[in-house]
Amino acid sequence: MSLDFRTLWWEDDALQMLDQTLLPQEEQTLVCRTKEDVWEAIKRLSVRGAPAIGVAAAYGVVVGALQAKTSGAVLTREMVEEICDYLASSRPTAVNLFWALDRMRKIASESHDILNDLLAEAKTIHQQDQDICRRIGEHGQTLLSNGQTVITHCNAGALATSGQGTALSVIYAAAAAGKEIAVYTDETRPLLQGSRLSAWELQRCGVHATVICDNMAATVLRDKDIAMVITGADRVAANGDAANKIGTYGLAILAHEHGVPFYVAAPISTLDMSLEHGGLIPIEERDPKEIYEGMGRVTAPEGVDVFNPAFDVTPAKYIKGIITEHGIAAPPYVESLARLASMSPAP
Amino acid sequence: MSLDFRTLWWEDDALQMLDQTLLPQEEQTLVCRTKEDVWEAIKRLSVRGAPAIGVAAAYGVVVGALQAKTSGAVLTREMVEEICDYLASSRPTAVNLFWALDRMRKIASESHDILNDLLAEAKTIHQQDQDICRRIGEHGQTLLSNGQTVITHCNAGALATSGQGTALSVIYAAAAAGKEIAVYTDETRPLLQGSRLSAWELQRCGVHATVICDNMAATVLRDKDIAMVITGADRVAANGDAANKIGTYGLAILAHEHGVPFYVAAPISTLDMSLEHGGLIPIEERDPKEIYEGMGRVTAPEGVDVFNPAFDVTPAKYIKGIITEHGIAAPPYVESLARLASMSPAP
Repeated sequence: MSLDFRTLWWEDDALQMLDQTLLPQEEQTLVCRTKEDVWEAIKRLSVRGAPAIGVAAAYGVVVGALQAKTSGAVLTREMVEEICDYLASSRPTAVNLFWALDRMRKIASESHDILNDLLAEAKTIHQQDQDICRRIGEHGQTLLSNGQTVITHCNAGALATSGQGTALSVIYAAAAAGKEIAVYTDETRPLLQGSRLSAWELQRCGVHATVICDNMAATVLRDKDIAMVITGADRVAANGDAANKIGTYGLAILAHEHGVPFYVAAPISTLDMSLEHGGLIPIEERDPKEIYEGMGRVTAPEGVDVFNPAFDVTPAKYIKGIITEHGIAAPPYVESLARLASMSPAP
Repeated sequence: MSLDFRTLWWEDDALQMLDQTLLPQEEQTLVCRTKEDVWEAIKRLSVRGAPAIGVAAAYGVVVGALQAKTSGAVLTREMVEEICDYLASSRPTAVNLFWALDRMRKIASESHDILNDLLAEAKTIHQQDQDICRRIGEHGQTLLSNGQTVITHCNAGALATSGQGTALSVIYAAAAAGKEIAVYTDETRPLLQGSRLSAWELQRCGVHATVICDNMAATVLRDKDIAMVITGADRVAANGDAANKIGTYGLAILAHEHGVPFYVAAPISTLDMSLEHGGLIPIEERDPKEIYEGMGRVTAPEGVDVFNPAFDVTPAKYIKGIITEHGIAAPPYVESLARLASMSPAP
């Protein structure tokens, strides 16, 4: 499995990325040369997806350090702390953001050549993310047989990571193992990561994708012989409750009601063992405009109230398994996740 | 309860309607002077909603008859049959369309002054629809208490009828009875009847409306103390299975899982006692473009497959009650609906 596009990379002393706000119509590179550029890119979702946000934030610290050095400052640990605090304020739900920044803080606190060590650590996080994606796919694809069909929600693909994805890595690994898998992808309102991004990359990788509106999943689950539902996660609590893109919770209930297994695919860095259950995960609320003028036309009357939570939490009881780089965790998650969390997140 | 807008009316020898494809930005009247105008208005959803489609089709027969007369033809029963067959081909799922056309066919077959009798019958259907809407509201509002919050899907409001709606009539009747009811309205992809139409008319009638994406309903059901979910229906089978806008089936499952009662509000003309169960209801599939370029911007990669069913069927087991003009039917529906079907659909 090799991709013919890249989600984000380090080049010419800058973090570069495919600007995902412009897909599927335009493939344009966004070059981030300041920490503000990186913060903005994360905030406005030019780069999104928990693992990719982690890698972008790590490089963002390097960008910020270079920026400080260029302005003539002598780089200190305190300055790195400030850069990390700033980048941490971009999005609240994805724990990988904080996890990656903590790794960068730790490096800075132990380093005598801060800039070089930060860049080396960011590259390590990047490389590890690619390896983790591949391993998630290899573990997950054992659950699929040739000819099966799955539903996914949002984009937990290559575009959500610096590698071949999490949920979609399972599909790519199955394809690499010679299994033909078809995918229904929820368009995923309000920002349409399913139709804009998942459909784009699946098509690009030769996987048959069918776009549906989110509210069609129940009909598809009933009528289309769906083998499994598989999504990513932005944060998983110690008991297995999983925060993911809004709509995942409802989809998990619908899968359960139709007897279809629901799987989450996520790296161990997505586990937040400090949270006993999912009710403690902060849920980002985003601009109402994403709903009522998100697609070029105003779609609600002026002045109407709008509720726009970006994520929801799926209780562990609806989750059949959590596919990680070290294997597939099964209920009871309090035990299986504790075991995984004690292993190194690196391969 | 009096509305300050009209959905459709007869004026100047023509069927006139508020063009719903332009809401909420523009309030523009569409004048239909040929049966082709009416067919097109139904097909492209300038007028939609099962009861409104019935009234529009009845007036459409008059329009077609006038058109034939203007062209110099002598109006015959056979010509009326042809006009009815033509209009019946506009949309397959809403049974009110066929029910209204059958009433028009019957009038023509018994008439000696076809044109006048057709117009009188269309006006009767129109007047009866208004009375039915009011009575659905009066029955339904007894289920609500002051301060409660409901979720609705699509638009089963004044804009879906020639009166004050079906599902939303319940809200309006509650308001008229002095109860303050708040409404979450699913935006209802792909054509956004919830955000474009329900939010518009609720706001216009002074009811507090909050727009959500369809995939947020599960979160709202869990967190927002929802008293009931209430939707309309396009066709109800003899066993109580109800076809309605795509997404209703999933919403009913989510309501069930959260212990929130799910009600359908629909006139008796929506019952199709010839169908034993909902699996026999034909489901219209619409243009994939509604999904991938429905809102002014292309939202999926070129050439990707799209599945676009316009309706789904909610099994009777998820429906707590069906609110009609003659009262609220409860399970077992095979009995309660048979009793209602034997009553006159007219008040």
